[in-house]
Amino acid sequence: MASNGDSQTKYLLSEAEMPTAWYNLQADLPNPAPPLHPGTGQPIGPADLAPLFPMALIEQEVSTERWIEIPEEVQAVYRLWRPTPLYRARRLEKALGTPARIFYKYEGTSPAGSHKPNTAVAQAYYNKQEGIKRLTTETGAGQWGSALAMACAFFGLELKVYMVKVSYEQKPYRRALMEAWGATCVPSPSTDTESGRRILAADPNSRGSLGIAISEAVEDAASRDDTHYSLGSVLNHVLLHQTVIGQEAQKQLAMADAEPDIIIGCAGGGSNFAGLSFPFVREKLLGKEIRIVAVEPAACPTLTRGVYAYDFGDTGQMTPLLKMHTLGHSFMPAAIHAGGLRYHGMAPLVSLLYEQGLIEAVALPQTKVFEAAVQFARTEGLVPAPESAHAVRAAIDEALRCKETGEAKTILFGLSGHGNFDMAAYEAYFAGQLMDYAHPQEEIEAALAGLPAVGN
Amino acid sequence: MASNGDSQTKYLLSEAEMPTAWYNLQADLPNPAPPLHPGTGQPIGPADLAPLFPMALIEQEVSTERWIEIPEEVQAVYRLWRPTPLYRARRLEKALGTPARIFYKYEGTSPAGSHKPNTAVAQAYYNKQEGIKRLTTETGAGQWGSALAMACAFFGLELKVYMVKVSYEQKPYRRALMEAWGATCVPSPSTDTESGRRILAADPNSRGSLGIAISEAVEDAASRDDTHYSLGSVLNHVLLHQTVIGQEAQKQLAMADAEPDIIIGCAGGGSNFAGLSFPFVREKLLGKEIRIVAVEPAACPTLTRGVYAYDFGDTGQMTPLLKMHTLGHSFMPAAIHAGGLRYHGMAPLVSLLYEQGLIEAVALPQTKVFEAAVQFARTEGLVPAPESAHAVRAAIDEALRCKETGEAKTILFGLSGHGNFDMAAYEAYFAGQLMDYAHPQEEIEAALAGLPAVGN
Repeated sequence: MASNGDSQTKYLLSEAEMPTAWYNLQADLPNPAPPLHPGTGQPIGPADLAPLFPMALIEQEVSTERWIEIPEEVQAVYRLWRPTPLYRARRLEKALGTPARIFYKYEGTSPAGSHKPNTAVAQAYYNKQEGIKRLTTETGAGQWGSALAMACAFFGLELKVYMVKVSYEQKPYRRALMEAWGATCVPSPSTDTESGRRILAADPNSRGSLGIAISEAVEDAASRDDTHYSLGSVLNHVLLHQTVIGQEAQKQLAMADAEPDIIIGCAGGGSNFAGLSFPFVREKLLGKEIRIVAVEPAACPTLTRGVYAYDFGDTGQMTPLLKMHTLGHSFMPAAIHAGGLRYHGMAPLVSLLYEQGLIEAVALPQTKVFEAAVQFARTEGLVPAPESAHAVRAAIDEALRCKETGEAKTILFGLSGHGNFDMAAYEAYFAGQLMDYAHPQEEIEAALAGLPAVGN
Repeated sequence: MASNGDSQTKYLLSEAEMPTAWYNLQADLPNPAPPLHPGTGQPIGPADLAPLFPMALIEQEVSTERWIEIPEEVQAVYRLWRPTPLYRARRLEKALGTPARIFYKYEGTSPAGSHKPNTAVAQAYYNKQEGIKRLTTETGAGQWGSALAMACAFFGLELKVYMVKVSYEQKPYRRALMEAWGATCVPSPSTDTESGRRILAADPNSRGSLGIAISEAVEDAASRDDTHYSLGSVLNHVLLHQTVIGQEAQKQLAMADAEPDIIIGCAGGGSNFAGLSFPFVREKLLGKEIRIVAVEPAACPTLTRGVYAYDFGDTGQMTPLLKMHTLGHSFMPAAIHAGGLRYHGMAPLVSLLYEQGLIEAVALPQTKVFEAAVQFARTEGLVPAPESAHAVRAAIDEALRCKETGEAKTILFGLSGHGNFDMAAYEAYFAGQLMDYAHPQEEIEAALAGLPAVGN
């Protein structure tokens, strides 16, 4: 590490200091509500999930072992871009005139540009081990689809990505990225699945949604023996794989002689937030005083305005029911630029932490988020992804509160990815074309009225 | 470092091992032909350059000191992304079935995504030191403009970028990136300068060129006391700043117990190629056997089909005359996707090495280049910029020759940047829309007929 007064300070681990096990919060937060079969209302078992996931991931989904070893083959791929840097944002602190110390953990060094490969690589590995030849998944803006495309290239798996049609048309570059890694990408709804054909029959002009694309990918995987399905967030095993982020950050903060007062992460499905914060949740459970804040968009306020209930993960009502914070599986979030945060639900483990009062949540409007992103780019040099910029905004707000109170708090936030593929959003911001959205209470209540009876 | 047999191996330096001085090839390669005043034909002196550049850079331009200290303020900014990784491309080697060992030095970790910030930061620093408030520059595809925008944000300088109009319209995302860092960007030819207005009067529909944009940026800087001009390649001081790349690579190869047989870099203006290769040129001058290969596009074959002569750096004939390999300042390279390699000239120091037989050159067609880029992405995970992909192609070709001969050569190539902002080029490649171009000999001869009489 090195610094002068005005510049950033970077804390880098050696490869030997990388975590060799994932941290499993389920060991320390017992009794999560189990997923239910939507037909029977009974907890689902491994056999129900076997058509979609390899047994190693099904075991991780329900494991209560605190540490789960990271296979050497997965660590080897991680080392392409890991360990990732932790920075002290000295130039931002100075620009804000805050006594707070601001640290950020940067996951944009991966070839796909976000934290998503942390789980994509693990999922591809376990599927390959089980003899699977082909994966399917859905993607919205394309961050998850491109991460899995890269992972599948490493392990020699075929990949078919169902990409929400509106994104497929508006974001050809993300699609080209997936194709560069060898994946096949089709617009969803497609004519390749029963679910897709049903949607198209009802509405030939459907622009698609994440919920529809999930239905298509799940149907495809369930119908072929050589194929499994892969999900980029929400599920316990996905969150588990992301905990390398927080574990590295713990060691890096120790290098800086810093104890965090506040941990901040953006939360869509919850995997980025979980990856950074769960190792610190453990510290909190062991007695440390830490505020942990999930930041969601005002246009998709799952934690702050949703309910804690059983709901489907997809629009097509094909997935098991998960006990989670949800706005209802039919909720259609406004078209904000942080596509990765536009999901009606929240990971069950994150939702449970929120219910137990172990974490807080805040919902922010996108214009204020982009304002913070630009301030960050001009001081720290890195241009945040719109999703990550939610955490930047919240961190700046906390630092400005410290300026008012004179407190020298230590803030850590997650910069989950860079904005290289999102410059259209910045363009719109500079042109004054970004709008803020707040869904009327009636709209949210209408979506919540559609929650399934089973489990609730 | 760590590896398993199938994965990449990464060689990382600590920050303490970063170079603290730039390597100046002029100490070891004496008597380069001096720049000439286009009017008088006399060598230009510091006073001629003072309206455009700070004295510290003018001194570096002509210095024969072997090592020039990197100011601590510049090193502090470098540490945002430096030292950069060196990888052994084990997965690519395996896919090729070659006995060769392939290493690559990756400069895409910088926030601007290429090697360009290595000099942008230094230039911004020296201008700030001299009390300059504002810089101007030109940019084509936008890689240089965005690097300088980032550097100016760090040192609190204003920046005006004259962006070739066709790129300004086709690449709004690069423009948004420059604006995210606070730069002002106008399409060139613009009505803001006499040069621009003259071009527009003759052709209101002009799409611009790099040569025109240089003329505009130089005129703007020369007309204001608070403003200097900044160039992203070609000049000696620019190449000097890039030598951190090769110096780091030397140490990293030593970590790998590797002695390079072949060094490969793509070459447009020459700064990336120089940055990687000059420290190895020194080794060669000291007696080591190393082949050093510059890779240029077949559509702009400056070294392989140009002549070594005095020529202007810009279309508008405003710059000093440089003795260099050139296709003539009026040469218009075909519209290949590697915008950063579309320059009629080549850095004088690189040209001199070529004349002296110390380096080789090869010119490659873009379809073969993209084929290599995709093979690289699918094996190594990183998606190369189209410019960098030229080096990938040449490295693969050398490795395939080793496969034929059975030689286990050690190849080092420079991966100067990522392709995140170039996915439209990949899209065109996958759609079968990329064309290869070879300029007819008459066309090149016609452009060469326009070389200035002065000096030649």
